[in-house]
Amino acid sequence: MEGKASVKEEIRAQTEVVSTLKAQKASQEQIEKEMSKLLQLKAQLGGEDDDDEDKHSFVLKTPKGTRDFNPRQMAIREKVFDIIVSCFKRHGAETIDTPVFELKETLMGKYGEDSKLIYDLKDQGGELLSLRYDLTVPFARYLAMNKITNIRRYHIAKVYRRDNPAMTRGRFREFYQCDFDVAGHYDPMIPDAECVRIVYEILSKVDVGDFRIKVNDRRLLDGMFAVCGVPDDKFRTICSSVDKLDKASWEDVRSEMVNEKGVAPETADQIGKYVSKRGGQDLAEELLRDPNLAQNAQAQAGLRDMTLLFNYLQLFKVTDKVVFDLSLARGLDYYTGVIYEAVLIQPQDAGEEGVAVGSVAGGGRYDELVGMFDTRGKIVPCVGVSIGIERLFSIMEQKLESSAEKVRTTETQVLVASAQKSLLEERLKLVAELWDAGIKAEVVYKENPKLLNQFQHCEESGIPLVAILGEQELKDGVVKLRCVASREEVEVPRAQLVAEINRRAPPQQKF
Amino acid sequence: MEGKASVKEEIRAQTEVVSTLKAQKASQEQIEKEMSKLLQLKAQLGGEDDDDEDKHSFVLKTPKGTRDFNPRQMAIREKVFDIIVSCFKRHGAETIDTPVFELKETLMGKYGEDSKLIYDLKDQGGELLSLRYDLTVPFARYLAMNKITNIRRYHIAKVYRRDNPAMTRGRFREFYQCDFDVAGHYDPMIPDAECVRIVYEILSKVDVGDFRIKVNDRRLLDGMFAVCGVPDDKFRTICSSVDKLDKASWEDVRSEMVNEKGVAPETADQIGKYVSKRGGQDLAEELLRDPNLAQNAQAQAGLRDMTLLFNYLQLFKVTDKVVFDLSLARGLDYYTGVIYEAVLIQPQDAGEEGVAVGSVAGGGRYDELVGMFDTRGKIVPCVGVSIGIERLFSIMEQKLESSAEKVRTTETQVLVASAQKSLLEERLKLVAELWDAGIKAEVVYKENPKLLNQFQHCEESGIPLVAILGEQELKDGVVKLRCVASREEVEVPRAQLVAEINRRAPPQQKF
Repeated sequence: MEGKASVKEEIRAQTEVVSTLKAQKASQEQIEKEMSKLLQLKAQLGGEDDDDEDKHSFVLKTPKGTRDFNPRQMAIREKVFDIIVSCFKRHGAETIDTPVFELKETLMGKYGEDSKLIYDLKDQGGELLSLRYDLTVPFARYLAMNKITNIRRYHIAKVYRRDNPAMTRGRFREFYQCDFDVAGHYDPMIPDAECVRIVYEILSKVDVGDFRIKVNDRRLLDGMFAVCGVPDDKFRTICSSVDKLDKASWEDVRSEMVNEKGVAPETADQIGKYVSKRGGQDLAEELLRDPNLAQNAQAQAGLRDMTLLFNYLQLFKVTDKVVFDLSLARGLDYYTGVIYEAVLIQPQDAGEEGVAVGSVAGGGRYDELVGMFDTRGKIVPCVGVSIGIERLFSIMEQKLESSAEKVRTTETQVLVASAQKSLLEERLKLVAELWDAGIKAEVVYKENPKLLNQFQHCEESGIPLVAILGEQELKDGVVKLRCVASREEVEVPRAQLVAEINRRAPPQQKF
Repeated sequence: MEGKASVKEEIRAQTEVVSTLKAQKASQEQIEKEMSKLLQLKAQLGGEDDDDEDKHSFVLKTPKGTRDFNPRQMAIREKVFDIIVSCFKRHGAETIDTPVFELKETLMGKYGEDSKLIYDLKDQGGELLSLRYDLTVPFARYLAMNKITNIRRYHIAKVYRRDNPAMTRGRFREFYQCDFDVAGHYDPMIPDAECVRIVYEILSKVDVGDFRIKVNDRRLLDGMFAVCGVPDDKFRTICSSVDKLDKASWEDVRSEMVNEKGVAPETADQIGKYVSKRGGQDLAEELLRDPNLAQNAQAQAGLRDMTLLFNYLQLFKVTDKVVFDLSLARGLDYYTGVIYEAVLIQPQDAGEEGVAVGSVAGGGRYDELVGMFDTRGKIVPCVGVSIGIERLFSIMEQKLESSAEKVRTTETQVLVASAQKSLLEERLKLVAELWDAGIKAEVVYKENPKLLNQFQHCEESGIPLVAILGEQELKDGVVKLRCVASREEVEVPRAQLVAEINRRAPPQQKF
């Protein structure tokens, strides 16, 4: 059975390969090659189908790149969300919500090469819709639609990308983004610096090890491309080549620039010199003195803002984790100024620099996006940052997996139990009294459960107290309150039961 | 401009009518009729387009039947969610999450006539996907996939239905469901009664006026149809006719049964006698003595459980709002036993019974749904209830609209302000100190904001305190702390500022 199941899994995967190729209108030869693999797999399975399988030929799974969260994972997820939301609230943010899908035209022309990853809904008559790809474009649409010119808002919601999932590394097709954005005309770099501070606060609190926050500026990149000799119409595509430097070597990126995108080799080499630079405020000052960049107004504006940013970051006491990194590019089309990306650092052997293990936050300034939605093109400058919760969540989950810490998935304070038979009605009456008093309480859904089974339920789900009813207790107007951990039992008058439960097992403060 | 906009809106609506008809393969004649209306509207608009409109011909809106939530609405929504979640937790529930879309085949065959309202995703190569229509089917899929045989879980998430939205009445195409379900083999009607108690608790707390919880049983309905002479294969369709009785008159429903669905007039009349019955435990006992129903095992099972249910509901002290209502049918295919529906009651003139103004919760027992997903058809009995948050939310919003109560959308405790120019750096240093200490604090993002503007910001967003810095305060190592409401100001030594802020404006407990 095991072997058969894995062949079936392969068939499913191969079927998908074939239909993807068809959808992409791949060459006939390629489709045929993959198709023959599929047929071989099917032949392998042969006629061994049994009745059982025939009855339920459907596939019991979640869609590719998605997952369920079980109660234990939800408890961890809520913990991470609490940290993030309390940080956003500490910085005075309000929250909004937008629909999971937008008109297709709302998303069009905002994501450059990544647009192909957008999920479209089927045309079932009516509007053409797409699932949101991020929370930034819906935010800009919201601002324009409601003519809002200043707001500091956070939004935590799922977004959708038809990417190739690498789920073990925390990359999914459905994933949460936790966004903080500031819209409005303000003095330069003050909200921009607050965004960096927020990423710093959250990554420090979530306890996922060391991290760095890279910063750069789109204007500086554009200016640098200009002085290196990249033609204007190639800025965006060269930018997306540079963006690959966190995964690919400079040699590969250079080859893409020269051989695929057609920039001159000497231009690529000049770019190479710049994008290898990393530093802090000192680097910004050094580049301000660079005679080539001095000729470019865009680059100058970017560098002046970078200096100012580091000035504010110093006051915010976060510069120990911030790196000015000229190779940081960020793929999205809509950025116009400062850009950010936070990466986690894997500790190396003593003395060596840590290695980045992937992005956990990103963002930047996008001053023109709202204007794209406004009838009169009215500008509302924006800057923001998006925390990628999935990877943080994966890391915390692995940590808990390897630790002995037990995660409770309920907050029940007490189980109402009975020591003898035929006391269901008394248990129901008592549990209702406790609910009325705001106590988190359960009963076992059996008419005559064994006392031992009731205790066992408490052990398994971490319920700290048992309120035990018996004939004698009912006669005396008391309840026997048992502490599950210590097995200690005390008789409590019924009128004092609520207070005693709250004293011995205080309700969690969260709700 | 106004008139033109409304014609454009009509054109959009009419375009949708036409494409829906085409998708439904309506008659050529009907399509042409609607098409000519569309052309007339377009002619009406004529060539009056101006440049301005040309530049931005896109439509700035959310998709039909959806909406954004602004910060004020979010504050109300969070309040309602808090009530609901704390109720679910009081009853010992854990939570899970599932993807927003499922494999199309997972949803197929679960919703009867309503399946046409499911949103499909476009086939972009790969799996065929649909947006979830409720949280119950994904829950059943989750249980079967993970071989879970008992759990008490809640799930709060958005679901999607291509229904005709009546947004003023709180009906949307994207809306939240708040579900509580119990899966497992238990003694009869204990978890079923807890579901009713939960609806009772939530509707009592949310403060949306009077309500009733109707209960009935699918087996009783089927048994009743049988003894009235409905053929087996018409149970479901007659059930869905009965389901319309909350909106349509008996005469209309009877006519649908007789003329469209082909049941005999005398059968319809017999059904009519039953479905007009309402009561409590007494009605269940009366029907147990009904000689017709006595011949039907299904009806008897339903009635015995109904008696037991009322027995437990009495212990739970909720019978004052519960009605045994034989006209309650519920459309979904998967119910197998008790069914629930909660309705809000509009108060009438003194002496009259209130009028139901629409459903706010619904649910029931679905013992066979999980088995539909299990390879061996293994049964996991389930019962649950779903709270329809949107209508509750609409009502609370209207209430707040008409009251003078001010809803705060942030939790900021203090604004760090300056009395003179050139103190931006000092403000940034102080606000970072406050953030470090966990204080919720803001600065105005200007280099030299006027003190009055800073005060005004506090008034507008309800910030209770201002920490004012000036040259003198900096020299003295103090901060002037101003209470916005009383305008009282005190000098506080910098070392005591955090404690003083928390004393005067305690942080909200929620996070």
